[in-house]
Amino acid sequence: MSEILVVGSLAYDSIQSPEGKVDRTLGGSANYFSLAAHHFSKVRVVGVVGNDYGDDDLQMLRSRGVDTEGLQIVDGKTFHWEGKYEGDMNEAITLNTELNVFEHFNPKLPESYKNTPFAFLANIDPILQMEVLGQIQSPKLVASDTMNFWITSKKNDLLQVLQKVDLLVINETESILLTEEQNAVAAANKILQMGPKAVIIKRGEYGFVMKMGDDFFALPAYPIAKVKDPTGAGDSFAGGLFGYLASKNEPMTFENLKQACIRGAVVASFTVENFGVTPLKELTSEMLDKRMNQYLKMVTL
Amino acid sequence: MSEILVVGSLAYDSIQSPEGKVDRTLGGSANYFSLAAHHFSKVRVVGVVGNDYGDDDLQMLRSRGVDTEGLQIVDGKTFHWEGKYEGDMNEAITLNTELNVFEHFNPKLPESYKNTPFAFLANIDPILQMEVLGQIQSPKLVASDTMNFWITSKKNDLLQVLQKVDLLVINETESILLTEEQNAVAAANKILQMGPKAVIIKRGEYGFVMKMGDDFFALPAYPIAKVKDPTGAGDSFAGGLFGYLASKNEPMTFENLKQACIRGAVVASFTVENFGVTPLKELTSEMLDKRMNQYLKMVTL
Repeated sequence: MSEILVVGSLAYDSIQSPEGKVDRTLGGSANYFSLAAHHFSKVRVVGVVGNDYGDDDLQMLRSRGVDTEGLQIVDGKTFHWEGKYEGDMNEAITLNTELNVFEHFNPKLPESYKNTPFAFLANIDPILQMEVLGQIQSPKLVASDTMNFWITSKKNDLLQVLQKVDLLVINETESILLTEEQNAVAAANKILQMGPKAVIIKRGEYGFVMKMGDDFFALPAYPIAKVKDPTGAGDSFAGGLFGYLASKNEPMTFENLKQACIRGAVVASFTVENFGVTPLKELTSEMLDKRMNQYLKMVTL
Repeated sequence: MSEILVVGSLAYDSIQSPEGKVDRTLGGSANYFSLAAHHFSKVRVVGVVGNDYGDDDLQMLRSRGVDTEGLQIVDGKTFHWEGKYEGDMNEAITLNTELNVFEHFNPKLPESYKNTPFAFLANIDPILQMEVLGQIQSPKLVASDTMNFWITSKKNDLLQVLQKVDLLVINETESILLTEEQNAVAAANKILQMGPKAVIIKRGEYGFVMKMGDDFFALPAYPIAKVKDPTGAGDSFAGGLFGYLASKNEPMTFENLKQACIRGAVVASFTVENFGVTPLKELTSEMLDKRMNQYLKMVTL
């Protein structure tokens, strides 16, 4: 089984949506990513949590084969995010962010992680993304995500990261912010001039567009009539796609990226069906396979 | 060649977008629809214009085989719409609407139109849609469109029309307004309980979702990096799709609806590339075929 390293946040989230609310539920990009990716590849996590982090939450990852040696447990409180969704379920409104132990996070890879062939730099400070990248010995494939905060506050650092990654996975609004283009199509063209060989732009319920070289591919999301909580859908998409890509263990091609995007879309469709990581914890390979077949039927001529 | 009747507006539009502006350019749902549909079927237009309507604009339709016998030319000014696009190119901001001769429009079908097998009721007062429908003798297939104004001001009349149509073609935001559901997927489910056998929800640059019975189909739009003017894209989509559907001259099935949606998406992708009906006037069958092949490549696994 191929090995992936992911660096990102582990968090407790408080989330409100028209469908209900939850308080201090497990979240964070690294958790969503790992719970999506482990279906396809072996995941190694790099991140930091406080001493309030639940042992059961750690065990939950480990029981799925996720390596947590790279997880620092330090004095203090775990990263906390509070947000809500109103009307437009594609866009979260942040009510409160407490960085807590994440504020002084200094990623340090265990020796056993340094030869990981596939690396995913989830949405964290681009300076930290670069530091992680510097500790991996000649990775086969590197992908990254980012967000509006880093685009506006650390654009130069972010542009340096983009020079080093093979694939950027980014939200649509952030792709437009980053490139100052009109839409995702134009943004994809411009991002390919910034360094990455391929880009995947995530569009929430509208699916994704992917571009590699001159080749373009796009599909809508798997249709979900009742979205309860979109939090983590993008990270689940990235986990499914990168987990699949790594499992092929071959150079990235337009064809295997297409297949990877499909897996990402299918995993993400489960995430939004309930709050937090609950749907991903319950997800089985059989459920994945079944929905993938349904999805293919809905988008195939 | 199959025959389609379309009832809708013929207008002069003044449009601003980040890509420029035009004043009193030819527009209106019936014009966009006809210019899209004539590639597939013979179109008969029902509508009203003022005596300021250009002879060249009439000739332009006729030279494409469009039958204009059902067009009333009355004293007064042609319908005028003024709108702009800012930021979100999927949503027009109406600056001014002058109904003019449209205010007292009383559609009356010429004898030669009354046996038209395929009828499209574009976005006009549902009471007028019903009157047109009443004048057609046992049509094979009826489709309609509508907009927020009628949903809020004449919902009961609209619901009666929906009881009579086989297919509703509607914008995403309006499908949500009509059904009070959370998203297009849930809206599609509910619309099928209102009468139509099938529904197509138009999502602008995000393409469309289509539902017939329990079968669901969705695709993104053909990617356009520079959208100059989205006006009429939805009517062009409807024209391409309904023109194709009529050309099959067989009962509506999920399979021919899929194919029809593809044609609609391809025609609409030309419409947005320049202001008004200019791109549709220049559109050839060769251009359509070429882009359809490109589109299929971009959405096929």
